[in-house]
Amino acid sequence: MAQTGTFRPDDLAAVAERMRELDICMLSTRTDDGIASRPMSNNAQVEYDGDTWFFARRGSAVVREIETDPTVALGYIATERGTWIAIDAEAAIDDDANHKRERWFEELRRWFENGPDDPEVVLIRATATRIRAWGGDTDLDVRRAD
Amino acid sequence: MAQTGTFRPDDLAAVAERMRELDICMLSTRTDDGIASRPMSNNAQVEYDGDTWFFARRGSAVVREIETDPTVALGYIATERGTWIAIDAEAAIDDDANHKRERWFEELRRWFENGPDDPEVVLIRATATRIRAWGGDTDLDVRRAD
Repeated sequence: MAQTGTFRPDDLAAVAERMRELDICMLSTRTDDGIASRPMSNNAQVEYDGDTWFFARRGSAVVREIETDPTVALGYIATERGTWIAIDAEAAIDDDANHKRERWFEELRRWFENGPDDPEVVLIRATATRIRAWGGDTDLDVRRAD
Repeated sequence: MAQTGTFRPDDLAAVAERMRELDICMLSTRTDDGIASRPMSNNAQVEYDGDTWFFARRGSAVVREIETDPTVALGYIATERGTWIAIDAEAAIDDDANHKRERWFEELRRWFENGPDDPEVVLIRATATRIRAWGGDTDLDVRRAD
């Protein structure tokens, strides 16, 4: 987690505020021949520390693409409220049973009916490297310090 | 335009219907070290033939990235109405003066104050190769036939 501490806390708080209630983002991965995107639920993380977590199915396209190339992008669009957020991130697959239980919420049963202990379920952790946000009082463009 | 004729007309009509009134999408490009995304206006194209057009500034990051690698992704999110669309596309820069005038709309002056004849303004044409949509009565996953 140390790497995310290099964003300024104020910046992360500003992102968390704009991200509030945005349950669904577009998760984009690099593939052999282009970019693949799909909507993913992140349960409207209110306490944002630079990491975004998604549940996914082991062996699914998104998991395989991240295993091959960990660079991803997250796109949040809420045009009706004038909020747009683009996050560049490095993703990793996390198979830790405690992490899965901690981050589970019951709406996920729509996609993962057997719950967080199902061996077919893994977590994707996307660690932001750059965050841009448009709309609101000011635009935001912050990078993680290396 | 012939390449876009290989989607079934019914499929394109279904996409156009879901895309209606979604003025802003996230346009993602491949960069040397990852993916870059930014919200772009496409003026809620109602007549969708597989091509999406964006105005951009000559020499801007998005234009340079497309010149280097034309594979892009478009992400539409309207969670409040249960609509999510992901389009894989091949993009090209179009500098045709007539195309720019035909596609100009006045709200664009917010970003391009000198209008469509400004030599700093170019068009990005993103030609869909695969369209996926979630929500609504049915999910959609259609590819352009080669």
